[in-house]
Amino acid sequence: MIARAVVIALALVAQSAAAQPKSAGPADPKLIEELILANRILAMEGVVDAMGHISVRHNRDPSRYLIALARAPELVTAEDVVEYDLDSNLVVPTTRRQYSERYIHGEIYKARPDVIAVIHNHSPGIIPFGVSKVPLRAITHSGGFFAEPVPVWEPRKEFGMTEMLVNNSALGRSLVQSLGKHAAVLMRGHGVAVTGPSIQHVVGRAIYLEVGAKLQAQAIALGGGVNYLDPEEGRKIEARRDYIRSWELWKRKVTGQ
Amino acid sequence: MIARAVVIALALVAQSAAAQPKSAGPADPKLIEELILANRILAMEGVVDAMGHISVRHNRDPSRYLIALARAPELVTAEDVVEYDLDSNLVVPTTRRQYSERYIHGEIYKARPDVIAVIHNHSPGIIPFGVSKVPLRAITHSGGFFAEPVPVWEPRKEFGMTEMLVNNSALGRSLVQSLGKHAAVLMRGHGVAVTGPSIQHVVGRAIYLEVGAKLQAQAIALGGGVNYLDPEEGRKIEARRDYIRSWELWKRKVTGQ
Amino acid sequence: MIARAVVIALALVAQSAAAQPKSAGPADPKLIEELILANRILAMEGVVDAMGHISVRHNRDPSRYLIALARAPELVTAEDVVEYDLDSNLVVPTTRRQYSERYIHGEIYKARPDVIAVIHNHSPGIIPFGVSKVPLRAITHSGGFFAEPVPVWEPRKEFGMTEMLVNNSALGRSLVQSLGKHAAVLMRGHGVAVTGPSIQHVVGRAIYLEVGAKLQAQAIALGGGVNYLDPEEGRKIEARRDYIRSWELWKRKVTGQ
Amino acid sequence: MIARAVVIALALVAQSAAAQPKSAGPADPKLIEELILANRILAMEGVVDAMGHISVRHNRDPSRYLIALARAPELVTAEDVVEYDLDSNLVVPTTRRQYSERYIHGEIYKARPDVIAVIHNHSPGIIPFGVSKVPLRAITHSGGFFAEPVPVWEPRKEFGMTEMLVNNSALGRSLVQSLGKHAAVLMRGHGVAVTGPSIQHVVGRAIYLEVGAKLQAQAIALGGGVNYLDPEEGRKIEARRDYIRSWELWKRKVTGQ
Repeated sequence: MIARAVVIALALVAQSAAAQPKSAGPADPKLIEELILANRILAMEGVVDAMGHISVRHNRDPSRYLIALARAPELVTAEDVVEYDLDSNLVVPTTRRQYSERYIHGEIYKARPDVIAVIHNHSPGIIPFGVSKVPLRAITHSGGFFAEPVPVWEPRKEFGMTEMLVNNSALGRSLVQSLGKHAAVLMRGHGVAVTGPSIQHVVGRAIYLEVGAKLQAQAIALGGGVNYLDPEEGRKIEARRDYIRSWELWKRKVTGQ
Repeated sequence: MIARAVVIALALVAQSAAAQPKSAGPADPKLIEELILANRILAMEGVVDAMGHISVRHNRDPSRYLIALARAPELVTAEDVVEYDLDSNLVVPTTRRQYSERYIHGEIYKARPDVIAVIHNHSPGIIPFGVSKVPLRAITHSGGFFAEPVPVWEPRKEFGMTEMLVNNSALGRSLVQSLGKHAAVLMRGHGVAVTGPSIQHVVGRAIYLEVGAKLQAQAIALGGGVNYLDPEEGRKIEARRDYIRSWELWKRKVTGQ
Repeated sequence: MIARAVVIALALVAQSAAAQPKSAGPADPKLIEELILANRILAMEGVVDAMGHISVRHNRDPSRYLIALARAPELVTAEDVVEYDLDSNLVVPTTRRQYSERYIHGEIYKARPDVIAVIHNHSPGIIPFGVSKVPLRAITHSGGFFAEPVPVWEPRKEFGMTEMLVNNSALGRSLVQSLGKHAAVLMRGHGVAVTGPSIQHVVGRAIYLEVGAKLQAQAIALGGGVNYLDPEEGRKIEARRDYIRSWELWKRKVTGQ
Repeated sequence: MIARAVVIALALVAQSAAAQPKSAGPADPKLIEELILANRILAMEGVVDAMGHISVRHNRDPSRYLIALARAPELVTAEDVVEYDLDSNLVVPTTRRQYSERYIHGEIYKARPDVIAVIHNHSPGIIPFGVSKVPLRAITHSGGFFAEPVPVWEPRKEFGMTEMLVNNSALGRSLVQSLGKHAAVLMRGHGVAVTGPSIQHVVGRAIYLEVGAKLQAQAIALGGGVNYLDPEEGRKIEARRDYIRSWELWKRKVTGQ
């Protein structure tokens, strides 16, 4: 992963001069297929309802990313997937509606060469932690990637009263500041942005962040204190994490094969 | 929306002299179709079980509204839809049972020219807030329409011990007093009435009011205080709210297409 | 209902001398059909899992009742239904296993001429109230039948350490003492027995007792006090209660028609 | 059960000298079929997601056990089932991935001759009790097998910071120490290991341990104290426990017959 991140970092510097977004060319059809599967898996697992979106960095050019036009993830098909530069400008114009919060994706890809896929969602378990002083933090093995508490982004600090959407680059950059080097960042009164080094990782993380939030809330409700996962335990777990077994199951369930 | 509200207000005045309800003529078949879809979407999303109902103002006459005869929303078909005047008298008599609480709809349409569609339901998340001193109030973007706390109607104040149903005009008028200019009003020990400027809006609101109630309860349970949505944030959100993306998904799911 | 209860009371006295149970003859096929539907509705609504059972008084003889042999309610067919006297002796012997807790049904029918149908179940919402000092009590219209708190039967008082089953008449009589004139009685560390004047009523009550228990728990968790339904409100509601609209929906859902 | 346990104990001693694992020969096809059913039942009931596994002792040799290679339980077929000795060495080598935590199973079979089947899972209800000072303990009849609180294994004590997996024999032995003579042992920040004298028992226990954990959490949340099942009540219940009725239902549901 580290080697790939360096290549991406260099490519980002080389391309920063370009003003008009140019297509990186057709993406790997397998990547598109995996992105469609991811959309449907997220819907099946209750991570997204009609809202929320997932993107992936273009396999040919780290300064481009792929995401659907505005549509419920459950309904997304390959025909809905389009290409953006990292300022979230479309490479090919369209008359269809775009996700107004695509800047979440573009700004994260700009700042974090290690990130290959991003999800923005509003799953019910995580939202309460965005409005509470209680930090979202893993209690269990499946949450190794958030053994350090998940930071919370508060748009009021910098922007005052807003419509609570990350619908321009300035808001996106502010969100990325809060994200820092974490795997995810909560958005106060709104939802979360989750990152990963692959589509499978980011899907697994979004699902288990939701699972983990519900588990933590239940543990708190027992009233007997909470023995959190140690950050060192989290690091050891994540060093060998993959989602191969889960992906096989999720794929079989959404494709019915 | 404002222009249409004025037209409706004038029409209401003009028709208030009429004693015997006369039909406004056949409603737009697309409106009926949307009303049927709405019934089934509300059932699918768990906003209604066998009980609860949705109405829409007649497209030809603001002093008439359309709603099904007594039947579980999931089973409602176009043949079940009938027309009422705003005193909730049937335009065409029937031997079938009517919703005994249709007065909720009639009295809201009378008092609120801006309202085009109304839902009455007993979804599980909202009911606890009707019997608690804790006000129901949005913590998240999807609840922009109740960034101001939802009022609670207490029938005991004016009517003492009742069977807890809004089954006449006097009870309906009392409920409407509590509703005021809000999008929704809780009914103590019973449920809620939700209003909107279109069928899509009222369905979206009923669904996200339920979602929001559950989120708020979870946030309270964390014990770390709750950072509510600011009413000004709510206004900014709602100024541009639509439910187009959600409606596409909900429609596809209930029609299986 | 009252007239029918008197007839039943007289019939019970007249038959109490009989030692060997004799069949009352074939039951109304419509009653059997309704009992089968009820079994499947209770499973669909999560009131029963593999355990739990529903019975109905024989339509020809109030001193006989009908219930399935031991089988998960979801799987019960007309072939599984058998006839018992009120001491819970089989009218026709069988080698198949019987519900060991059929005494719940027999003893309730003996003591309560007004009861025509009984359910015993272990639905998750109600069980916590059987082990808590907080009484189970309606907060909402749908729970009018338990506006007075549901009594709790504690077998330890009379019987000490048991296997927690009502598997003989003495235990059944003790349970009936706690039931009194209520619609339902909780069994500590076990479940509940629910009664009604018809199959439709008892099914509706078992479903809405479970719904109501969850609502009450949620209301308590909000921490703002609970404004319970007044017993007088409950009486007014129940005086006109039926489950016609719900039954139509439930029947359509379990039969798929 | 006791007679069989003695036979197993003697066989374990006799075989402890063997260094290279040899197959005990083909297992009873009905046992394999039951193991496959169990995998699918656990998935259907939400006890496992893509993770978790179930094993059974070989019917021909108590020093061998049968379990699938690494795959989500819902997808496991007879072709995935392989044979291990009690040090969790494969009898027939494979290039496929194995469950890294198979040592849970091997070490339990070694130490507990009475155990015929083992499940390791991470069901959501039980996890909070592994990180809380509140012990997991039955409040109801269905939880008779954990009327004594479930012990919690804390790997930090002996092993410090780990990746939280029982992926070698030393960790397995430590877990078994905590298990003692209990039916189950919680693993802090991870999940649970459940044991039973048959596949049907262990599946029933894993399902009702999850049910019981949720019930206990709800009872605690009511705030009125919790009247737990007495250990003596638990013993009386378990002396006659079987899962015949449940198994018929579960089997019908997963096979669709």
